[in-house]
Amino acid sequence: MMTTITMIPLEDFERVRKAELETNKRLDLLADMCRANALAAVKQAGSGHLGSSFSAMDIVVRLYYEEMNVPSVGLDHPDRDVYFSSKGHDVPGLYSVLFSLGLLSEEKFFKLRRFGGLDGHPDIACPGVEANSGSLGMGISKGRGIAWAKRYLRRGGRVFVMTGDGELQEGQNFEALQSAVQQGIGNLTVIVDHNKVQSDREVSRIVSLHDLKAKLAAFGWHVARCDGHDQEALARVFDQFRQIEDTPKILIADTVKGRGVSFMEHPRALQEGGGFYRWHAGAPPDGEFMEAHGEIVARINRRLAAHGLDFITLKEVPPPRKPEPFYTLEGEPESTIEKEPRFKVTDEYVSAVYGESLMDVAGRRDDVVVLDADLAADCKVRTFELTYPDRFIENGIAEQDMVSMAGGLARQGLLPVVNSFASFLASRANEQIYNNAGEQTKIIYACHYAGLIPAGPGKSHQSLRDISLFGALPNCEILQPCNGEETRMVVDYAVDVARENVMIRLIIGPSPREIRLPPGYKLKKGRGVTLADGDDAVLFAYGPVMIHEAMLASELLARKGTGLRVVNSPWLNRMDREWMMEQIRPFKHIFVVEDHAPVGGFGDFLLNELIGAGGLRSRSFAKFAVEGYPACGTPAEALRFHSLDGASLADRVLSGIRSGPAA
Amino acid sequence: MMTTITMIPLEDFERVRKAELETNKRLDLLADMCRANALAAVKQAGSGHLGSSFSAMDIVVRLYYEEMNVPSVGLDHPDRDVYFSSKGHDVPGLYSVLFSLGLLSEEKFFKLRRFGGLDGHPDIACPGVEANSGSLGMGISKGRGIAWAKRYLRRGGRVFVMTGDGELQEGQNFEALQSAVQQGIGNLTVIVDHNKVQSDREVSRIVSLHDLKAKLAAFGWHVARCDGHDQEALARVFDQFRQIEDTPKILIADTVKGRGVSFMEHPRALQEGGGFYRWHAGAPPDGEFMEAHGEIVARINRRLAAHGLDFITLKEVPPPRKPEPFYTLEGEPESTIEKEPRFKVTDEYVSAVYGESLMDVAGRRDDVVVLDADLAADCKVRTFELTYPDRFIENGIAEQDMVSMAGGLARQGLLPVVNSFASFLASRANEQIYNNAGEQTKIIYACHYAGLIPAGPGKSHQSLRDISLFGALPNCEILQPCNGEETRMVVDYAVDVARENVMIRLIIGPSPREIRLPPGYKLKKGRGVTLADGDDAVLFAYGPVMIHEAMLASELLARKGTGLRVVNSPWLNRMDREWMMEQIRPFKHIFVVEDHAPVGGFGDFLLNELIGAGGLRSRSFAKFAVEGYPACGTPAEALRFHSLDGASLADRVLSGIRSGPAA
Repeated sequence: MMTTITMIPLEDFERVRKAELETNKRLDLLADMCRANALAAVKQAGSGHLGSSFSAMDIVVRLYYEEMNVPSVGLDHPDRDVYFSSKGHDVPGLYSVLFSLGLLSEEKFFKLRRFGGLDGHPDIACPGVEANSGSLGMGISKGRGIAWAKRYLRRGGRVFVMTGDGELQEGQNFEALQSAVQQGIGNLTVIVDHNKVQSDREVSRIVSLHDLKAKLAAFGWHVARCDGHDQEALARVFDQFRQIEDTPKILIADTVKGRGVSFMEHPRALQEGGGFYRWHAGAPPDGEFMEAHGEIVARINRRLAAHGLDFITLKEVPPPRKPEPFYTLEGEPESTIEKEPRFKVTDEYVSAVYGESLMDVAGRRDDVVVLDADLAADCKVRTFELTYPDRFIENGIAEQDMVSMAGGLARQGLLPVVNSFASFLASRANEQIYNNAGEQTKIIYACHYAGLIPAGPGKSHQSLRDISLFGALPNCEILQPCNGEETRMVVDYAVDVARENVMIRLIIGPSPREIRLPPGYKLKKGRGVTLADGDDAVLFAYGPVMIHEAMLASELLARKGTGLRVVNSPWLNRMDREWMMEQIRPFKHIFVVEDHAPVGGFGDFLLNELIGAGGLRSRSFAKFAVEGYPACGTPAEALRFHSLDGASLADRVLSGIRSGPAA
Repeated sequence: MMTTITMIPLEDFERVRKAELETNKRLDLLADMCRANALAAVKQAGSGHLGSSFSAMDIVVRLYYEEMNVPSVGLDHPDRDVYFSSKGHDVPGLYSVLFSLGLLSEEKFFKLRRFGGLDGHPDIACPGVEANSGSLGMGISKGRGIAWAKRYLRRGGRVFVMTGDGELQEGQNFEALQSAVQQGIGNLTVIVDHNKVQSDREVSRIVSLHDLKAKLAAFGWHVARCDGHDQEALARVFDQFRQIEDTPKILIADTVKGRGVSFMEHPRALQEGGGFYRWHAGAPPDGEFMEAHGEIVARINRRLAAHGLDFITLKEVPPPRKPEPFYTLEGEPESTIEKEPRFKVTDEYVSAVYGESLMDVAGRRDDVVVLDADLAADCKVRTFELTYPDRFIENGIAEQDMVSMAGGLARQGLLPVVNSFASFLASRANEQIYNNAGEQTKIIYACHYAGLIPAGPGKSHQSLRDISLFGALPNCEILQPCNGEETRMVVDYAVDVARENVMIRLIIGPSPREIRLPPGYKLKKGRGVTLADGDDAVLFAYGPVMIHEAMLASELLARKGTGLRVVNSPWLNRMDREWMMEQIRPFKHIFVVEDHAPVGGFGDFLLNELIGAGGLRSRSFAKFAVEGYPACGTPAEALRFHSLDGASLADRVLSGIRSGPAA
């Protein structure tokens, strides 16, 4: 039976706003009402971040209802106050507040993480969102830019930036703290949502913030600290901040992660989770959802009654989307909500097999050291962490530091395996990677969550440039395995055989289908393997997502009498030309499908190799890639939008065969 | 008349080391002797960084002569102490100390910034150099890695990392400060060479470090502060540090930039320079060199005499290299040493014309805001800074912060022009650039010092990946002008016409030759222009350096009866296919020369366009690019090493024409 999801309609918010109530009590009520709706939206979307949406909610509500002029001047006024959250993943809370003010339609609000709806991380395409975020640590800098521009343009309005506490591990924050003081950016206020839990662990256990108040004061900021759930205390701080015009101001708001739902609140939730916080990301299962929603609604109604007001009404929202046909497993990366892993370590789950393979490697080589930047669960290195704590290095959310540290480890002869999401590792620590590579040591970079899918979190997380970001390094091999079996081979190769740096590219979700390699298949440098055969054209592909679509295209074309060979090509920048020529020999048409942008990916590499080997004489070549910014939505929505789903690929291949000019 | 350069031979160091002298007095002497030799090596090389080599010298000498076990156990012992400088550019000082200990040969020492000699920034290829550096802010992280590995491997030896003070503006330092404490890296000692001047300005005027001691203490480090030129004070601090085993230690060493040469010492030097410090980088002119060297030598001899020791001997070193035939102007970027700009704003000096063009733009558009990360002189935006201080934003050495701030400015409708060296901007702030671009605002990124030349500073500064790092952004146009005239057009286009982000790629030195554009030439999107014609093949090129080599190749081939058309192609990722097809129509052989790595540059883009337009039917295509890591040396040495000098290009074209298979 499907759980019924209900939300509090706009009319109830309008009623509470107009009711005769003491301001702070009204804000308490509104915050809980916004919590209920954020919970409903996340449940309906099937994923999203509740823990920090809830910890920040009282502050966001205070800002929008009392501090900021946005409700009166509107979202487009040049003198408007500006608020955005640097941590970004707490955007369900912001959406909920915008909805409560009539600034976001109900239809949009309940299209969270769907194509044409709301991105899983903030994007300015949504009116009311002032900055794109999702990748951490950029907010104070960007807020400083907005504030500087307001001053230069003689515009009114103040700038408020919310940050997480774990987020403060990113060094960019400290750059911004310095420059904001130097430039006297007095119209900038930062609020640290200090809920003490980052992702699924305590901040103090990951990388402590130490004496945060002293630290911030030493940077020259005006610092205040108060209970971030106490509206009276918040009012006092903001009143005081309003008087200080020449110095940037920062509030350390002591908050509780998961605030408002008893079993989601830290520290209880952390204790019940055996030291791991379950409610950072992901939609709660049905039972927990009902319990949480019920608890919030009951509290709201109790308070309404105490103030002599009517209960809220609850309106049913459309049921959550069903899993899509070829994504029978949920492909979302943020799976910390389940006590038990949602997916077993099967051959279809490359990320989990990667984690297992590292364990095997660790058993035989004690020079292998694993580095993490606060994504141990998602990167599947938690088992390693718990089993080999003496050679698991947690660096916090600080990719640059992690990568340069790996460089130092390698200089002493260790073999570091560096883990993070591809977007953050390839891009943020790019120069550090180059610096290490220049030392001719060997480091393995595991780039998780590579590619278009899952597409719910939005463009800050979808990594479609990582091949290009590693590609121009002279001494780095890039490999992407297509299934668990190949993942094992890739890890073993990287650890035991490779002489250069290796970038391992991994999708984070389970595969859309079981991809079987031929019996006896072995990983050979620069070679791949035929997974489906056909007589009319060849399509090179890599990684579980695109190989699935390629196979689907081949199956669809076979029904129409067109034969499409699908070749799995795990080596993204090394090629055995003899093997390549064998693969293309029977064909006039060569295609490649990229789980990457069209520039700087495997397709460009293959094209160079084909040209170098004379392989394009009287053959056509076409590349299907993720053009433009990646779409946010379900896997099917995103693939279809980019014409990379099996059916679209089949059409594109057919049209290429018909019209494709030979090169 | 050529200035005679002399150096102090190893025997004198051995004599002073063995002489009966009080330790601290001996170190004072040795430090000055190392200063004299560093000065000689930089003068002989024609460039290098003296100011901070001198400020750090007393500390480096103390470390190698008293604190570290390297002189006794050697450079390869696993238990050796490790020292390296995170700021890197002070490496002439380190080379000088290594030479003084007999750990670096005289021959190598006096091949500074030459091919087969010593890199302008540290590279582990030189024995005794423990880490590559040159790009700032990575050292504490890397030192932490080395120290962690020593602990894990139960190796002896401590790790000492030197940082600059301006360098502390890089956020990565603060990431490392946090994690080192969390991990209890007690065998790590950091020394801040706090000379108060970064590049050519006071740190406090760029971005103040504020209360540095309080700041570092708030991160949980054990902090000490002392005079970095007082050997007794240094001894006390290091004695104390040796007792603290569980906490990382940091010394704020108050030093004087240019220490040891009266007119190079801050604050006198800054006053005499009208607020700008002249001796950060570059070799002093003959007169100043003689004066500086004489002053140091006289002091050494006075002290030797006072101790009853013989004067030092002085040995002549080979004279400085002559300017190379087609680089009649010195192509080094670090030109702060001249009071007057070394180069006039001529058509051959694209970087200077860029600065002028910005001034013109500023006159007509007050929405144009210029951002800098402590490279105002080198990026030629100092005139803008002094003329329009209200819209010049100095961010210090903090590229991430600068770029995200630009994002905020753009969100308020301003047009930010972001400046840094290509290596640092494209790589270090890559994710911030992506984040901004996703907001669909328009920002201009000026990537200075792009390409292989000048090759003296080494691979940390030679930017050969920047096109690939910007290339996969869906909405960023990349242009590189070939001369001053085109630079103006590019700046005007970027500011007034472009609707997307624009990356402007600029070489930093003057052009090797005057490149003339045809009369009436206008910049048209996706189009370039023929600069030399010929009947046998076409060579696409961009930027002054490679166009010069391409023209040279064409001239050399013409003598041999082979006609090579040279096409200037300033658009590196936008193409007018009609124009392209016109350019290639008469030819069977298409070549492209890259001032970039072979992957992800203009060549790959052109190849895609050719394939897309059917342009490679029965035509050959070959790409000449900078393969592997860029060579360090003079322009001619580096170009020759990579077979990208005119003569090599001519040979490669000829061999391509003869054997090149059609695609």
